[in-house]
Amino acid sequence: MVVRGKGFTVQCLVTTQGEGVSRRMVKFAATLNRESIVDAIGVVFDPMIPIKGTTQQVELHVRKLYCVSKAMPTLPINVEDASRSDAEIEAALQRGVQLPRVNQDTRLNFRVIDIRTRANQGIFRIQSQVGTIFRQFLLSENFDEIQTPKLTPGSSEGGSAVFKLDYKGHPACLAQSPQLHKQMAICGDKNRVFVIGPVFRAEDSYTHRHLCEFTGLDVEMEIKKHYSEVMDIVDRLFVAIFDVLNERCQKELEAIGSQYPFKPLKYKPKTLRLTFEEGVQMLKDAGVEVDPLGDLNTEAERKLGQLVLERYDTEFYILHRYPLAARPFYTMPCYDNALYSNSFDVFIRGEEIISGGQRVHVPELLVERCQACGVDVNTISYYIDSFRYGAAPHGGFGAGLERVVMLFCALGNIRKASLFPRDPRRMVP
Amino acid sequence: MVVRGKGFTVQCLVTTQGEGVSRRMVKFAATLNRESIVDAIGVVFDPMIPIKGTTQQVELHVRKLYCVSKAMPTLPINVEDASRSDAEIEAALQRGVQLPRVNQDTRLNFRVIDIRTRANQGIFRIQSQVGTIFRQFLLSENFDEIQTPKLTPGSSEGGSAVFKLDYKGHPACLAQSPQLHKQMAICGDKNRVFVIGPVFRAEDSYTHRHLCEFTGLDVEMEIKKHYSEVMDIVDRLFVAIFDVLNERCQKELEAIGSQYPFKPLKYKPKTLRLTFEEGVQMLKDAGVEVDPLGDLNTEAERKLGQLVLERYDTEFYILHRYPLAARPFYTMPCYDNALYSNSFDVFIRGEEIISGGQRVHVPELLVERCQACGVDVNTISYYIDSFRYGAAPHGGFGAGLERVVMLFCALGNIRKASLFPRDPRRMVP
Repeated sequence: MVVRGKGFTVQCLVTTQGEGVSRRMVKFAATLNRESIVDAIGVVFDPMIPIKGTTQQVELHVRKLYCVSKAMPTLPINVEDASRSDAEIEAALQRGVQLPRVNQDTRLNFRVIDIRTRANQGIFRIQSQVGTIFRQFLLSENFDEIQTPKLTPGSSEGGSAVFKLDYKGHPACLAQSPQLHKQMAICGDKNRVFVIGPVFRAEDSYTHRHLCEFTGLDVEMEIKKHYSEVMDIVDRLFVAIFDVLNERCQKELEAIGSQYPFKPLKYKPKTLRLTFEEGVQMLKDAGVEVDPLGDLNTEAERKLGQLVLERYDTEFYILHRYPLAARPFYTMPCYDNALYSNSFDVFIRGEEIISGGQRVHVPELLVERCQACGVDVNTISYYIDSFRYGAAPHGGFGAGLERVVMLFCALGNIRKASLFPRDPRRMVP
Repeated sequence: MVVRGKGFTVQCLVTTQGEGVSRRMVKFAATLNRESIVDAIGVVFDPMIPIKGTTQQVELHVRKLYCVSKAMPTLPINVEDASRSDAEIEAALQRGVQLPRVNQDTRLNFRVIDIRTRANQGIFRIQSQVGTIFRQFLLSENFDEIQTPKLTPGSSEGGSAVFKLDYKGHPACLAQSPQLHKQMAICGDKNRVFVIGPVFRAEDSYTHRHLCEFTGLDVEMEIKKHYSEVMDIVDRLFVAIFDVLNERCQKELEAIGSQYPFKPLKYKPKTLRLTFEEGVQMLKDAGVEVDPLGDLNTEAERKLGQLVLERYDTEFYILHRYPLAARPFYTMPCYDNALYSNSFDVFIRGEEIISGGQRVHVPELLVERCQACGVDVNTISYYIDSFRYGAAPHGGFGAGLERVVMLFCALGNIRKASLFPRDPRRMVP
């Protein structure tokens, strides 16, 4: 039998196995650095005495040993050090032992080694699963996946900063979201679509929750009667994601939790919905004054998250009917009060995770809203014209894959949920 | 019952339905332009006489009619015109009738209307399905989906032109493929990964098969013994894609074929593999001389496709063991002859669709290959260093989603398989 594995493990194996192991092999095995990769050829034995402290209940008696890939003698960081929890380091310190702590930046500099830890293997398996469940759910609800261009002539969201580039002599920018093109797909008679792909934000945000490039999970759909149809999809989709993760990824969640301890997310089978006005009132009752027609800041969102948890025992809820002034130009105003809009945000553990709502499908109103929001209609005329050919009422939402993973596992830093994160200070590796 | 639909259809309905339809409603219905969207409220009837020329065997007796979205009176292109096949236009011409032909560029200018045709609805349903089958197959083979950054400090492929941009004061470029980062994920102990996402090529290619932005379908995996393991995955994966499309998308394929007639792809349950040398010999026997240590040009590829079809009765095959000089710097040379490499291309209907092979996982050899190929090792040092921490032998491949759809359906132009195509002359809509 041939087994491929890490040299260090095999080294222990060889040096402790007597029979069939030559002196030369022992000597060779001793030269194998940590993280080297070897092929061990040997005979599988059922040990007489059960092996303790391992899940493998067979032994491999090594006959031949080949080094497939030699790691450098001293690695920039050790997997063992990178795998240690803060609690272990503290406990050792209590015993007077100072263990190395690998800080976040060093981890990212040597990400290839860092992602070998059990916790990171778990995080990226979870990330893969979130994408998979997202897709499976939407496909089963008759959504089609579409691909939208990232190279665009104008900025899609107005506000936030964009990455600019030269496109064959024309000014171009990287899409901040698939917003415009997913809506155009709806105008093209695709009833229900979703997009999974990178989105780009050139914002100078140095927070725990912002990246310059992240993976957008975007949905757009026709609305028959009310924007609550979109919230229904959000509700069932995310409850499905949480349910399946909890059911299918026990091992991964345990691996993550053993290095980065966290409490399982509290959520309900049917997601709580509050109006923005109700949220503002809850904050007011708790002594927090916010602008009833403005947006909530991060602090207010966090506070409201606490209040909701206390009153409703859930860390996942929808806040809807936002003030129009707090939303992008393409948001549909409320039918009964134009100070509000048919829109919503969704929160996990007090942090915004999803933003969505009904879109303006009436070209005249859209132009008016562009002007009110200071968006240049000329750069997006191809988008506005799309609504002149007959456009069904529609809405949708967008979430960030990395944020979903970060908040579900309470990782505290979005860089932990991105394989090779990009922020204003980091574009490498 | 409420039915949402296109105004024109309902207009016919109203004007031909006597009972319950007021004169005012008929007048209103007559004002509805083509492609306007209406809600019709009415009573469903089971007609006494079966309705001819339709699949719906019920009638809706309209009582109320609302216009949900009004299309402009004269659309830039009509869906009816955009839906016509060349054969229909020719046949009409034979009868002395000149029907409008919508050319490719006009279609793309008004893509939102163009994608409403039955053929286009079919094409993009097929595109969604290819992505779905690709994922499902790989997930079932223990691959994980990963997300790789598109903003990178260097060029990933060396040769072809890249889009450059400023990243917070540092020079950056858009990834031409996820090549480097998917390999780095393998170095990070992810055994098997795939990536679905946009890739960017700033090449000035004005052909039927090049785009400046397309959707990469990328795979990378550890290799145990031989690069044929990668070809095994290609073989089973793509046969699965073709099988499932043929089985699940009959309606879509028929819709596409009725506007753009094509013959079903000929492929075998087990994909034919030829070595590059065998391919060169076949060409030579047919009187076509090619450089035995260079790459095949498009014409030679097409010719070889014909020869393979004649001899082996398949339009899908793998050509492997390419000359090293024809491959990118990261390609592993053959063990027994360094003029060749552990690499392959895959062809559909005489056109290249997939490129892959084993990668160099030995850092010293990788540096040597960079130098031989004129690639600056400094811009990709983060990548080369990844192989110094112990790296398993690995390989993979990349395909273009739009090309798969174009060639499976023999569309003849890749722009037809991209929702909003980007080429050197087009960045809008």
